Order: sequence, then structure tokens, then C-alpha cells
Amino acid sequence: MAPRAAVVGTGLIGGSIGLALRAQGWHVSGVDRDDARATRALELGAIDAVGRDPSADLTFVATPVGAVVELARAVLEGTAGVVTDVGSVKGPIVRAVDDPRFVGGHPMAGSEQEGVEGARADLFEGAVWVLTPDGSTDETAYTTVRSAVSGLGAEVVAIPADRHDELVAVVSHVPHLTAATLMALADARSADHRALLRLAAGGFRDMTRVAAGHPGIWPDICAENRSAIVDTLDRLIEALGETREIVASGDRDGLLDRLERARGARTNLPVRYSRPDQLTELRVPVPDRPGALAEVTTLATELDVNIADLELAHSAEGDKGVLLLLVESAAAPTLGAALQERGYVVAERALEQP
Amino acid sequence: MAPRAAVVGTGLIGGSIGLALRAQGWHVSGVDRDDARATRALELGAIDAVGRDPSADLTFVATPVGAVVELARAVLEGTAGVVTDVGSVKGPIVRAVDDPRFVGGHPMAGSEQEGVEGARADLFEGAVWVLTPDGSTDETAYTTVRSAVSGLGAEVVAIPADRHDELVAVVSHVPHLTAATLMALADARSADHRALLRLAAGGFRDMTRVAAGHPGIWPDICAENRSAIVDTLDRLIEALGETREIVASGDRDGLLDRLERARGARTNLPVRYSRPDQLTELRVPVPDRPGALAEVTTLATELDVNIADLELAHSAEGDKGVLLLLVESAAAPTLGAALQERGYVVAERALEQP
Repeated sequence: MAPRAAVVGTGLIGGSIGLALRAQGWHVSGVDRDDARATRALELGAIDAVGRDPSADLTFVATPVGAVVELARAVLEGTAGVVTDVGSVKGPIVRAVDDPRFVGGHPMAGSEQEGVEGARADLFEGAVWVLTPDGSTDETAYTTVRSAVSGLGAEVVAIPADRHDELVAVVSHVPHLTAATLMALADARSADHRALLRLAAGGFRDMTRVAAGHPGIWPDICAENRSAIVDTLDRLIEALGETREIVASGDRDGLLDRLERARGARTNLPVRYSRPDQLTELRVPVPDRPGALAEVTTLATELDVNIADLELAHSAEGDKGVLLLLVESAAAPTLGAALQERGYVVAERALEQP
Repeated sequence: MAPRAAVVGTGLIGGSIGLALRAQGWHVSGVDRDDARATRALELGAIDAVGRDPSADLTFVATPVGAVVELARAVLEGTAGVVTDVGSVKGPIVRAVDDPRFVGGHPMAGSEQEGVEGARADLFEGAVWVLTPDGSTDETAYTTVRSAVSGLGAEVVAIPADRHDELVAVVSHVPHLTAATLMALADARSADHRALLRLAAGGFRDMTRVAAGHPGIWPDICAENRSAIVDTLDRLIEALGETREIVASGDRDGLLDRLERARGARTNLPVRYSRPDQLTELRVPVPDRPGALAEVTTLATELDVNIADLELAHSAEGDKGVLLLLVESAAAPTLGAALQERGYVVAERALEQP
């Protein structure tokens, strides 16, 4: 029988999850606050059925951030399955839901399209999908979500929820607010100078593209991640003030230095993990303490070691099981050593590539 | 005989100009401060010959902003032809060169590539190319540059030099400095949090792409356009401070309002002028006063009327000539009326489209 999934919220993200899961053989049911939208998702093939599914093994809550907690709790009460979400802020959600069967998630993918009409099965192909397991996360719940998300073509990155929120303030929330501010600044001047926006070339278009997105999700995001966003905006304003002084004082070397450093950083921006030449399997017996799986996977993230695959196998000895991690062979000693430092017993085995 | 052009500076822009002009049938000679680079341009087919050409009809000075004035003057002394440049700042250059045969220019196109190796004949296809004629610009010099630049596939926008500088501070210079600042901010945090840059998704990559460009041109640009850049940075810092207050105070409506306005502006960013359905020819006798051509073309820019083609015809009556402007028929009355208001005599004739 096909594994059963559900999506709550059949917009762009929920619809894309539905399309992608169905392509992987899942049965997907879906609901939306707006019935017409759920019906449209059915018409477009994003879901198999409209309605709740009490036997769903895995439910994605794909609504705006502000609605996640209540809906996730309802699904946890109504099913015995695992629940995850796609909200851009994680700390407040994970703390409020606080259930071993709930794993916070955030696919770092989007589109200028809106609604289920813009949904695509390949939206998550190659995208980073953050998961935020913690000490109370059930190990099987985590592997279920991780495996489903990997199946959608995404690269899973596990980090603590509050860490996620700090980091996305820097690489997503504040850049978005800045894009909107740059656009507004140009627009204000264009009232006097109609030629201005004609001069807006590729660089400006690239920088302001995200400002074309629907603003509806941002009040929630800014409310839930307020302190990290305000803190990052303060640092941006301070840094721009320094840049202003450098320009005003004609400090050529200071300017070159700043731009060179930014250039180096931009050039070194990590790309998708490359297909590993050689994989190594790390076998790690899971100790009988909560949060071991969260600890192992977030440690890998901190070390920038890509876990190509992860499985929780039941061991013959009847203890909690053995965690099988597939990592690139070159990175295996790094992760192995770090795990041993933290008291894990690690066995290593090189694998033939198929 | 082929018309003769020259490029001074055979880097990315000069090389691309050479490739594109040669494809249009020009003979192109080129020089570079670095002889090896000129030789490489010859090898790559970007120029026909290395060296100065005293009989060049048109010379493009394609060097960093700080070197333009001296080189343009030298070419004006060494040839009887027309000279233009490609610098990102125009006011200081145009004032310093101050020659009727010099027309300031700025192609709003670039590439992450560097040097002549990245040169492409189609680099300017569809790009805006600003020209800054003024009251002292020779009319024939202007039409020569305009026609050559149009031939490269660019859309010519004529505006006064100082106006250009104000506007590019808003849509190019400050966005560039902001991209570098955002990148530096993320990079600084990534020292503690290696996962941070992995979370940098498409939006962040789009916003910081320009920061990957070579910083070498920026000290000159920031020096030459200092006051407009500082002024725009001040306005950006102020606007970000307002955004910060809106987030800090949880002002949902204020945030939505700002983002909605930015979204509207981004969505309405002008695209390339569409191919006109119906062209109208405006015939404007050029009065015997300096700067008429500059006045007419910059007026069209202010009115956002695209001049699809422009020709200066000598009239039978022996006066200064007649300016033939091809504009979209729908826009012809607007431009015609504005010209008449300024004392021009305008005759209008609808043309058949080929």
C-alpha cells in the first residue's frame, strides 16, 4: 500500500510538496482554509483527495508561520503520524508545539509565482531544506521526515531551531527587507525622474527580485523572528554607515578592502554538495539518551559534512538501534572523530559506489 | 570602405564593443595600457589591428573612470573623429573633456566575467546605453555615436550627465555597495556558524551576485560620484532605520504597506521598449541654437518616449537641417506637443511598418 501523506495548506509550497510526493508514490490528501484552493489543488494533480486523513503517516503543515502551531497540534491529535511544517521561523513554533512527533522544517525554496497555480514537482530539487530536531524529537519521526524530504530532491541541513532563526535573519529576512527598501527608494525618486527606472539594469533587477513576492507572509515572520531581525538590521545599518564614511572620506584602500572581502565571500558561497566520489558508512549505536539523533545530525551540519543518507536500523542486541550514516569518504574521519569526542562509538566502512 | 572605429582599453567592455562593431562591418583598431591584453583582443577577433588609428571616425574610450579624461583628450587631439566613453560616472568627465566631438556614454551592461576573455558581441543586446549630450555637443557627433550604439543592439537613453550620476547612484552604485555589505555581514557570521552560508538560497544569491565583480573600478566611481552616493546611502540608512522601527514595534500594517509599495514598484519596473506596432516620423527643423539635439532627445527621455531611430538630414533650405525622429505612434503626440511648447516646429507623418 502506498505510504500516506497529507498537506495542510495547498498553496505554492503545499501544492509543490503534494506534486513531488505523488510522483514518489505517496497518496496525498490535502486541506486548505480556502476550500476552492484545495479543490484547485486536486484538479491540478497536487493531491489525491480533499480532506483530512486520520491515517496519514506524515503531514506537512504548509501555512503561513502564524497558523502553524494550532494546525500542527490539531494534526498531532487527529493522527498517529509524524508532523512537520515549512515555516520561515522555527524557534517559537518548535517550542510551542513541543511534541516528539513534530519536526520543524523550512525548505529554502520559493518562487515569484503564487498559489497552487505556481506549484511545481521540482521546486525543491537541489534546494536546502532545514530540519530542526532537538533533544525531545522522536528518532523515527526525524528519519521519516528526513527521508521524505530527501526524496523530493532537497538537501537536508539539520540545525537547532534558534540557530536557524538567527541565520535566516542574516541570509533571508534582512536581505528581503533591504531589497524592498532599495526598491522603494528608487521608486520614490522615479516620481521626479521617469528615466530612473529605465536605468535599472541587471544588477538592480537581481537585487530587488525578491521584493516582487507576495508581502502577506512577512508580518508573521517579522513578529516571530523580531529580535534576530532587529539585531541584524542594526548591524547592517552600522556597516552601511561605515561604508558611507569610507566613501565620504575618499578612503580608496578601505573601500577596495571591503569590496575584496565581499567578493571573496561571494565567490566562495557554497554550492550544492557535489556527488561524492566515494561514500563511507558510519555505524553509530544510538545510546539510550534523548536527542542523540539530533546531536549527530546538527554536529554534521556544524562541521559542514553532508549526510548523503541516514538510516536507523534496529540492532540484533535489542537496544535502541544503530544509526547508519552515509557520508563522503573524505569527510568521514572528521565526523567520526567529532562523534567519538562526544562519547559515541563509531565504526567505519568504505562503500563501493554503484 | 568600412567605417573605422577604435577602442582604447580592450577589456570586457572594449572587447565586446570591438566584437560587436566588427560584426556590423566596422574596421576596429585597439590599444590597451597592457600590450598583452591588446594582443589577446586581436587573437580573439575583438579588434582588426593593435595600435592607434588616426583616421578613426569613432573612438570608444573603455577604461576605468579615472583614466577617461586624459585618454579622451589625447584621442580628440590625434583624430578628427568622434569620441565617446563607457564610464559609470558622467558629469566630471563631460565637464573636464568639454569638446563638441565628445559624447559621454554609459552602457548599463556587464558580466561577472572579466577581461577580454569574457567579451561577447551580444553583451549590449537589449541593454540601456546612456548618452549625455549637452548644449555644446556637436549634432553630427551625437548622431554618429547614437547610431553606432543602436547598431550594437542597445537602447539609447539620452539624459544630462549630472542627472545620470544622481540616478545611477540610486539604481547601481548604492545597490552595489549594499550587496557587498550584506555579503560581508553574512560572511562575518559564518566564521562562527559554518551552516550559515549553506542556508543562503536563491534570493540571497541574487542579491549579492554583483558583489562577485572585480572591485577595481569602484574607488574611481565612488570618488567621482561621491556626493550622490553619500546622499543616497544616507537615505537608505534612514529608510532601513524606519523599517527597523516598524519591525521592532510590531507594526504589521506599516510593514505590509511598505512591502506592498515595493512590490508594486518592482512589478512595474520598465522592461525593454516593446517593438512598436506603428511608427510615426516627427520632422523637426533644427533651430540655429546650440544644444537643440540634446534638448530634444533628453526631453524624450523625461517623457519616457522611445526614439526608435533618429537622423539629422540636411534640408534643401540650407539651414542647420531637419531632425527626423521615429517614435511609436501612440507616443508621438506627447512628444510633438512638448516640443511645440518649447518652440520647435513639428511635422508628423505616420509610417507603414515593413
